[in-house]
Amino acid sequence: MLGKTQHFTEERSVEAVLERNAGCTDERLREIMSVLVPHLHAIVKELRLTPEEWLAAIQFLTRTGQISSDRRQEFILLSDCLGVSMLVDAINSRKIDEVTPSTVLGPFYVDGAPHLPMGAMIAHHGRGEPLFVLGRVSDEHGLPLENVELDVWQTSEDGFYDTQDDSQPDMNLRGVFSTGSDGDFWFRSIVPASYPIPSDGPVGDMLKALGRHPMRPAHIHFILRCAGYDTLTTHIFIDGDPYLDSDAVFGVKDSLITPLRDPTTEERRLYSLPEGCQCLSLDFRLQKEALNPMTGARTVAGLNGAPT
Amino acid sequence: MLGKTQHFTEERSVEAVLERNAGCTDERLREIMSVLVPHLHAIVKELRLTPEEWLAAIQFLTRTGQISSDRRQEFILLSDCLGVSMLVDAINSRKIDEVTPSTVLGPFYVDGAPHLPMGAMIAHHGRGEPLFVLGRVSDEHGLPLENVELDVWQTSEDGFYDTQDDSQPDMNLRGVFSTGSDGDFWFRSIVPASYPIPSDGPVGDMLKALGRHPMRPAHIHFILRCAGYDTLTTHIFIDGDPYLDSDAVFGVKDSLITPLRDPTTEERRLYSLPEGCQCLSLDFRLQKEALNPMTGARTVAGLNGAPT
Repeated sequence: MLGKTQHFTEERSVEAVLERNAGCTDERLREIMSVLVPHLHAIVKELRLTPEEWLAAIQFLTRTGQISSDRRQEFILLSDCLGVSMLVDAINSRKIDEVTPSTVLGPFYVDGAPHLPMGAMIAHHGRGEPLFVLGRVSDEHGLPLENVELDVWQTSEDGFYDTQDDSQPDMNLRGVFSTGSDGDFWFRSIVPASYPIPSDGPVGDMLKALGRHPMRPAHIHFILRCAGYDTLTTHIFIDGDPYLDSDAVFGVKDSLITPLRDPTTEERRLYSLPEGCQCLSLDFRLQKEALNPMTGARTVAGLNGAPT
Repeated sequence: MLGKTQHFTEERSVEAVLERNAGCTDERLREIMSVLVPHLHAIVKELRLTPEEWLAAIQFLTRTGQISSDRRQEFILLSDCLGVSMLVDAINSRKIDEVTPSTVLGPFYVDGAPHLPMGAMIAHHGRGEPLFVLGRVSDEHGLPLENVELDVWQTSEDGFYDTQDDSQPDMNLRGVFSTGSDGDFWFRSIVPASYPIPSDGPVGDMLKALGRHPMRPAHIHFILRCAGYDTLTTHIFIDGDPYLDSDAVFGVKDSLITPLRDPTTEERRLYSLPEGCQCLSLDFRLQKEALNPMTGARTVAGLNGAPT
């Protein structure tokens, strides 16, 4: 039983695995493995990973899967906190300056929010500072776009999405609006709050061990859908938030930061805005649908897949 | 809202993540992140990963966690099938030729198998070809080692572990033996079978997509524990098995392949072996416990942690 190992060695570990995939007929999958396996093995070799560390990694990943549910996607959270989600976004988003940049979808998107008439209130839980959101959607040249669907979601004034908080009614702080013929839209809400990402699971443990806080700066999520244009998944961040420079998921882009302002007398009158209401003026610009120059494939819509 | 992104870009994605870990007081964890994050981002960049592929990866990892249970560890299986487990083993196992090499623990180890008297039968389900296993455990110089604990487990004649098969009694084909003063041990069993790793989950789907079969060549698992020596986690493979060159988990090492043989007349008489019984003669050699020259840390025992 003694002798030298010949089947699998540290030196030829990558080849040993990749030569098994010779029969794979999916060219892209073979390409993925040919990149994934060398990096995975390089991680183990460079770190001289011990069996205890390997087992800790196995247990971490298992817990990350097991805490995930219909209402929580811990692997998206992990991807977000390691900068992977933003990197996928950066690689797949268009690079021209004239359109609004995308950012992460995040784990709190819910498909099927109610379609609401222009100006509707999306906060139904009776708390928070009043906010009026108004703006225009146009193409890269500034031409207004009609019938653009705006799928909106945000936290309450204490930083919880409806799916995390039993005190909020179902679909609270969510709604879908459509732009008018001049590309305009407006709706009523409350000022969102900065909040910690769910930190009672393995990703929270990781952030704690890394000495990182779990906070995200206050923002409103948008997915903009318009026939003939790339779907845009993005946030609008509230200017002045203390976490703009240290978003736990790296989602902030300067051009997505927008200040709150007082409404004009005209706005106050026109939209019957209550005392103390603040305004957020938004200017979204969409990119014409086209082949993605990076991948040669049809441009995909930011991270606009539902997370489940 | 227009302008250039400054916070997170493809170019400085790694720095953006790593600079957040400046407050991490665990030096090894900081080192792990400083290796993990660049490779993880390199995978995404080299592949120009699309959002759809990213989402497929998220869903694959989530399913891998969710199918895991007390009786099944799909992340260990994934690690096994990507050659990661064998690589961790290769990095952490001693390199000298004089001792028996280690191999993967696998996901079917169960802690607490019964301690059995020498010669006991470990197959209690009434099927299979009779097998007599006998051998000696010694140190690297061939000096016999007394009181070595041999923790043994294997499949039935149709390739299932007791934990996978309700027709087998609890702890079937498992047992713990101790060597005598001459280092000898012997026990009765049945000939194990080559078998597919569990292929009804995400790892099975992956193997299928890669055109890989899920088979492992027939083997018996051993963990050998002896005070003053490195714990050895290994298999003995049955010579002639058709899957020795394509083990789904890369566990085979030439020096662990052992032929079945007919018993001698003396053995037949001495151990009262039944008609048709085959023999497997084993010669284990253990390595004196010492500091691991690779990591500077105390040598760890192969992959001998329990998988849960």
